[in-house]
Amino acid sequence: MRRLATIVAICAWGAAAAAAAPVASGAVREYWVAAVPTTWNMIPNGRDAITGTTYDTAQSVFPTVVYRRYTRGWKHPLFNNPTQGGNQDLIPGPLLQARTGDRYVIHFKNRDSAFRRPHSMHFHGVHYKPSSDGAYVPGFSGGDADVKYGKTWTYRLTAGRDSRGVWPYHDHSPSMDDSIAGGMYGMLSILGRHEAAPDREFVVVFAEMGAFQTIDGRAFVGNTPVFTSKVGQLVQWDVMAMGSEHHTFHVHGHRWIAPDGTPRDTQTVGPAESFRIRWREEDPGTWLYHCHVEQHMMQGMIGTYHVTRA
Amino acid sequence: MRRLATIVAICAWGAAAAAAAPVASGAVREYWVAAVPTTWNMIPNGRDAITGTTYDTAQSVFPTVVYRRYTRGWKHPLFNNPTQGGNQDLIPGPLLQARTGDRYVIHFKNRDSAFRRPHSMHFHGVHYKPSSDGAYVPGFSGGDADVKYGKTWTYRLTAGRDSRGVWPYHDHSPSMDDSIAGGMYGMLSILGRHEAAPDREFVVVFAEMGAFQTIDGRAFVGNTPVFTSKVGQLVQWDVMAMGSEHHTFHVHGHRWIAPDGTPRDTQTVGPAESFRIRWREEDPGTWLYHCHVEQHMMQGMIGTYHVTRA
Amino acid sequence: MRRLATIVAICAWGAAAAAAAPVASGAVREYWVAAVPTTWNMIPNGRDAITGTTYDTAQSVFPTVVYRRYTRGWKHPLFNNPTQGGNQDLIPGPLLQARTGDRYVIHFKNRDSAFRRPHSMHFHGVHYKPSSDGAYVPGFSGGDADVKYGKTWTYRLTAGRDSRGVWPYHDHSPSMDDSIAGGMYGMLSILGRHEAAPDREFVVVFAEMGAFQTIDGRAFVGNTPVFTSKVGQLVQWDVMAMGSEHHTFHVHGHRWIAPDGTPRDTQTVGPAESFRIRWREEDPGTWLYHCHVEQHMMQGMIGTYHVTRA
Repeated sequence: MRRLATIVAICAWGAAAAAAAPVASGAVREYWVAAVPTTWNMIPNGRDAITGTTYDTAQSVFPTVVYRRYTRGWKHPLFNNPTQGGNQDLIPGPLLQARTGDRYVIHFKNRDSAFRRPHSMHFHGVHYKPSSDGAYVPGFSGGDADVKYGKTWTYRLTAGRDSRGVWPYHDHSPSMDDSIAGGMYGMLSILGRHEAAPDREFVVVFAEMGAFQTIDGRAFVGNTPVFTSKVGQLVQWDVMAMGSEHHTFHVHGHRWIAPDGTPRDTQTVGPAESFRIRWREEDPGTWLYHCHVEQHMMQGMIGTYHVTRA
Repeated sequence: MRRLATIVAICAWGAAAAAAAPVASGAVREYWVAAVPTTWNMIPNGRDAITGTTYDTAQSVFPTVVYRRYTRGWKHPLFNNPTQGGNQDLIPGPLLQARTGDRYVIHFKNRDSAFRRPHSMHFHGVHYKPSSDGAYVPGFSGGDADVKYGKTWTYRLTAGRDSRGVWPYHDHSPSMDDSIAGGMYGMLSILGRHEAAPDREFVVVFAEMGAFQTIDGRAFVGNTPVFTSKVGQLVQWDVMAMGSEHHTFHVHGHRWIAPDGTPRDTQTVGPAESFRIRWREEDPGTWLYHCHVEQHMMQGMIGTYHVTRA
Repeated sequence: MRRLATIVAICAWGAAAAAAAPVASGAVREYWVAAVPTTWNMIPNGRDAITGTTYDTAQSVFPTVVYRRYTRGWKHPLFNNPTQGGNQDLIPGPLLQARTGDRYVIHFKNRDSAFRRPHSMHFHGVHYKPSSDGAYVPGFSGGDADVKYGKTWTYRLTAGRDSRGVWPYHDHSPSMDDSIAGGMYGMLSILGRHEAAPDREFVVVFAEMGAFQTIDGRAFVGNTPVFTSKVGQLVQWDVMAMGSEHHTFHVHGHRWIAPDGTPRDTQTVGPAESFRIRWREEDPGTWLYHCHVEQHMMQGMIGTYHVTRA
């Protein structure tokens, strides 16, 4: 996996563009994704930098299944989010980028050789037929919702005008509970047809994971993603939550104008809710971003954001 | 009660219109409601269709008190929401429909012969004097807030311009805790003066009930309301929560534009919060709607929505 | 402390104005604040007026540290919010009032002789350099985030155009957990440059405190703030939450138009979220305001609002 890191450090936006086959109303965004077993460490450096508490691997490491991006035909594994600041690893799954008017073709393969559970992908925010819903309901759902080990499914989605924004995707198969608890989730990021792409795009997924509260599968400053930007850059935060708890997203030293026109610096996000925030960066420094639910902060839901002068 | 079902299958909208006495600025919406004992079954078919888990009646049935709609003078019981898709039964209470500019006259009678507790009705979103508040505060509140067994109270409310939308009502008497836990809640639905009425209106109340998480008092697909519509219809979802927990409302395969202009498909709703969502239906299929708090889904807060071709 | 109460009953707005040194783009709002030990009683009258339950001081009194406003140079203690209806005492800290374009200079001194913990002030919604962030991160933060007993720090903040509204401040030092649990929080209230000041401004902080759910550090009707206004007055509610729980703010007999144009009377507020609500009062009576999370109401998060005729 480490060797691959250097090979596949291609731009996520570039990769999406390369995969696009132009059509009348937009591009086709084709992705190859598999459910793959991995051994995940929530706290790679073994400590909470703020309190000094240490954790051993018996507390922080567990076997799980995650979404992983691949090249065409699932030939070669890719890092999920190679160019983004922060965690370039396997949780969350690949950031699925498009513009309104585009279509997504998502090829999914169940390679869960560890647990041999069924898996699926269920997408928020986009248009699709029931056969691309990916949600298990006996008597109604089909192969999209219950992809067995070794099998594949292709999900066909359309980014409508009302799909602009950021959205969750996640397992909604019979193994949903265990799979989401283990990190099987990711985001779609859909820009308007002619909207400026951000210079920096940060994916923040709040989710409980065992005894910890994680951001992108990691707990505590020094383990959670370190996001970076330069003064003058257009930065975008893609925020969502998964699991069973409500959170409040906060960034120090910054504010944004909510869609209703109100200045904010803290925003509730419940399970499967999602929002994006943008600003033109002008505040150099090392800033905290975190869930402001105090118990969640203390259980690891906090990270740092570094802004340097241009 | 079963015999009455066939007799009273009148249109809720029609009933409200029939009761209206025109006044200068709007109609008078008169309702007759009683608190009545019943035996409630949260899981009538005894099973969770998704996991296959079965539940016996010792787990799902309990004696309780609910709001029930009546004809004038509490002469004959009516089904609470006869024409709506889904649960036409006793939880939630009757959907109290009006337009801005209308006045409500709600005649309430405590027929709680089972527990002989005091009861009341407290309404959100509307204008009223303290004597129609229905909330118990010793030293301040009056007969509106503490209607004893066998007694009555008439609540007088006005739907102002700032009452447009959907709102909760619920018991706020000294028995509030037990009564809300037992299902004593319902909704007001107030259209703008000249606003189009929806073709289909679905009432979704999220509330914990014992060990289960319920929608309109029912748990698990097959027990919760089955909402239905046809392509081309204007559908409206009236969503609220009661109790002590925050939820996130999600419908599969659909999105809506929030009042702030943002596309959404998942929305937090906390206790006594409420919102309505509308769309012109265009996606045939069987779709899930549910609370996206995972533990709540697993405890029953999930149902199906069937859209057929016109 | 009681003797001081009569001496310092000056207008909070007047005090802020008196302290202002005019500058090109706005005023300088200078405040002197200290962390001071106190003995706090969450339920001074020893009872829940609604249920009649009584509580003894062993359950409701505890030693803690709070923010207290002082005159220049920390010479004389002031009441935190002398002219506001309700709790004029030490929780929350002083309401830090300004207008967009103003600068704040907040002089903070750690006088925590009881616990000798480090303390700090971290402010939401305003612009500042990392040296005024007040949030402890080993290896990054400085003296602003870890003010030792007997030491001082001056925080320099700017109220930008995007700072309009109400915002939390709180301890973010290494003692953050204990300090917030003990009441070390308060609010900033920032009006637009030419915006009308309200006639009445009510500060509502929802926070768990031991076994109770408090408003401004107090539990149950008769202990929580009693807010008052007259018909015709412009009233403003400044609402925030601290701690680890989500709440829903509700006022009886009133509604407001949310910034997205939607009428509301109940609004979710999670930890460190904040919003302000305004209306021109027109409904005389004694009304309840409370968190609508039922368990929180039952644990004390409820108070009364008295409106008299002009």
